[in-house]
Amino acid sequence: MVGVSVLGISGSVGSSTVKVLRQFRDQFSLRSFSVHSNWETAKLLIAEFSPEVVCITDPKLVGQFGDRFGSTKILYGNHSLTDLVKLSSVDVVVTAVVGARGVLPTIAAIEAGKKIAIANKETLVTFGPLINRLVSKHNTLMVPVDSEHNALFQLIEREARSNIRAITLTASGGSFRTLPIEELEHVSVKQALNHPTWSMGPKITVDSAGLINKGLEVIEAHFLFGFSYDEIEVVIHPQSLTHGIIETRDGACLQYTSHPDMVYPIAHSLFYPNPTPQMLIERKPSTWKTLEFFPPDTKRYPGLTLAYQAGKAGGVAPCIFNAANEEAVALFLKEKISFTTIPRLIESALNQVKNEFPETLEGYLEKDKETRNLIQSEFLKGGVTT
Amino acid sequence: MVGVSVLGISGSVGSSTVKVLRQFRDQFSLRSFSVHSNWETAKLLIAEFSPEVVCITDPKLVGQFGDRFGSTKILYGNHSLTDLVKLSSVDVVVTAVVGARGVLPTIAAIEAGKKIAIANKETLVTFGPLINRLVSKHNTLMVPVDSEHNALFQLIEREARSNIRAITLTASGGSFRTLPIEELEHVSVKQALNHPTWSMGPKITVDSAGLINKGLEVIEAHFLFGFSYDEIEVVIHPQSLTHGIIETRDGACLQYTSHPDMVYPIAHSLFYPNPTPQMLIERKPSTWKTLEFFPPDTKRYPGLTLAYQAGKAGGVAPCIFNAANEEAVALFLKEKISFTTIPRLIESALNQVKNEFPETLEGYLEKDKETRNLIQSEFLKGGVTT
Repeated sequence: MVGVSVLGISGSVGSSTVKVLRQFRDQFSLRSFSVHSNWETAKLLIAEFSPEVVCITDPKLVGQFGDRFGSTKILYGNHSLTDLVKLSSVDVVVTAVVGARGVLPTIAAIEAGKKIAIANKETLVTFGPLINRLVSKHNTLMVPVDSEHNALFQLIEREARSNIRAITLTASGGSFRTLPIEELEHVSVKQALNHPTWSMGPKITVDSAGLINKGLEVIEAHFLFGFSYDEIEVVIHPQSLTHGIIETRDGACLQYTSHPDMVYPIAHSLFYPNPTPQMLIERKPSTWKTLEFFPPDTKRYPGLTLAYQAGKAGGVAPCIFNAANEEAVALFLKEKISFTTIPRLIESALNQVKNEFPETLEGYLEKDKETRNLIQSEFLKGGVTT
Repeated sequence: MVGVSVLGISGSVGSSTVKVLRQFRDQFSLRSFSVHSNWETAKLLIAEFSPEVVCITDPKLVGQFGDRFGSTKILYGNHSLTDLVKLSSVDVVVTAVVGARGVLPTIAAIEAGKKIAIANKETLVTFGPLINRLVSKHNTLMVPVDSEHNALFQLIEREARSNIRAITLTASGGSFRTLPIEELEHVSVKQALNHPTWSMGPKITVDSAGLINKGLEVIEAHFLFGFSYDEIEVVIHPQSLTHGIIETRDGACLQYTSHPDMVYPIAHSLFYPNPTPQMLIERKPSTWKTLEFFPPDTKRYPGLTLAYQAGKAGGVAPCIFNAANEEAVALFLKEKISFTTIPRLIESALNQVKNEFPETLEGYLEKDKETRNLIQSEFLKGGVTT
């Protein structure tokens, strides 16, 4: 029995993880999980899986549901996430919380010698050099859950590194792929949340609409796989069936194509390095119909270019990129700024916050905070809404 | 220096092989080759590569060009092909002759312990069980040159056999993919020879137009890779960029996609098991535009269904299928029968020639001859032209 901890179990990756745990109940045991505020879901999952510990992270709910529910211990607050992952019965941690707050429990899991199924891209984007040092020191097995990175992980494993010329992340192109560029300024939150192929949380859906999510994924791929930014490419693929492509030096491309359902990469990351058993859905090539591949339009997606800039700059530049984006997207979701202001705020932060190469988590967290403060003050100055 | 023998050097695979030999002149040495009747090409290649032996197979040309050309020995007739491949300086034999006459030199090469780059599909289709016994006995390294089989060879090598649910051969759909079915009866030879994506010889181009070539490839794949016919699928893919696909049990498909140029699979088969060096053409995913995948229409392509039937029947049924097709295509190319008569003649042969499971080459050759005689007599009876 493999013990599993899921951070962020009520989100889209968390829910898919539960599906996989149900399908392979004889092989995985859910030992702990967190929700932000969704107590109803938590109660049902506690009844179904009897975990040892559950954590509610919303600071407004501290203490609300007592300290036990049946035989399950209830903890509160982000700081308690580290207790969930350190349980001795936990073998693999699925980090499916959104945002930079995923970093502390990830570090705790690495230090406790757990396998990481990483679904929190901000941790690697923001703290990449730091996390990679820890992963290296503790010889951590880290398997990406993101469909693109999971596909690339599987492809890269099959090919000699010396024969890989480039890796390509596919991008659906998001909600506004075909909208006239001049209308992007005026799109509503509701329009941005209408993703063509994947059903995901609001923050990541907005990120996808501007290809900023893909920018974060480019940086994540850099830290996960060790390819330089010139070896990481992005292609628009509206059907979201091909999730990753590697180009080999001998002239071929290997594509990883599958039904767009997160249960596949999640199952792979839970079972790895063991093979994944037969899954339920088959999707024969003859049902694919059309797979399209286009270069991304840099005018439509300025955030992608900024992500490459931040990635190449290194140091805390990706941290600044991520923090500025998180703040800007939050403002957009509150209808305080326009959609096209998001990349403008990121660019402004990259220009104003000084890049550094800190050795400690604190060094990154300071830059994260400085960036967030800058975005808020830019917003309060009022010059950013158009 | 790796010594190379190319059987059928003036055909389309042969010419591409010469391109690869030129690109990697420091690693391969052309020691022998054959042409059917193209003496002009032979002379130029002799001057360029100084092979030890060259063979002219056209029986009408026996003795025409003497027994030496410079330091190169000249042989004549199909029976001399075995002498080319047995040369001690030859390490790898590219069998690019068309038709069942490829079998004797292939067997000679296997018995002489040479690596085979197999581009003559009729050998495996017709004599599959026999060739596989020899390959097994002599521990022969046989690498397929056909773009589809080469792609599948490379994919299968990368995946655990137990995780492969099915392999898929892609088919362009040939010259008549979009022609109204009722017009197929009246297509001309010229129309049939107008292949949309690959430039190949006339016989294989006609085979492609009716998906009979794909049927032969399904049988070839069965013998090459050991998959049952239920595990081998065909998908129409008009762009000919994806050459092979494997479906894994854990829900993924791996696609092998590359520029449709035979130099890639040829280079791979020559270098294998060593890695292929960087080739000249890069084709980034962002340049692919559209890749389409459809199930084949069994009404349009009755020959494909017949190939599966023959394959599943086993024994000499694939030999009957191939011989009937070779005779029928020859009649079509001479404008003696209509395009849609080709599968009707094959079906007639499969119904009339008794299936057997011979142990010897002679057993197969007898059935091959019986089938060819049957097709000729059916044609002479005159009942097959409509």
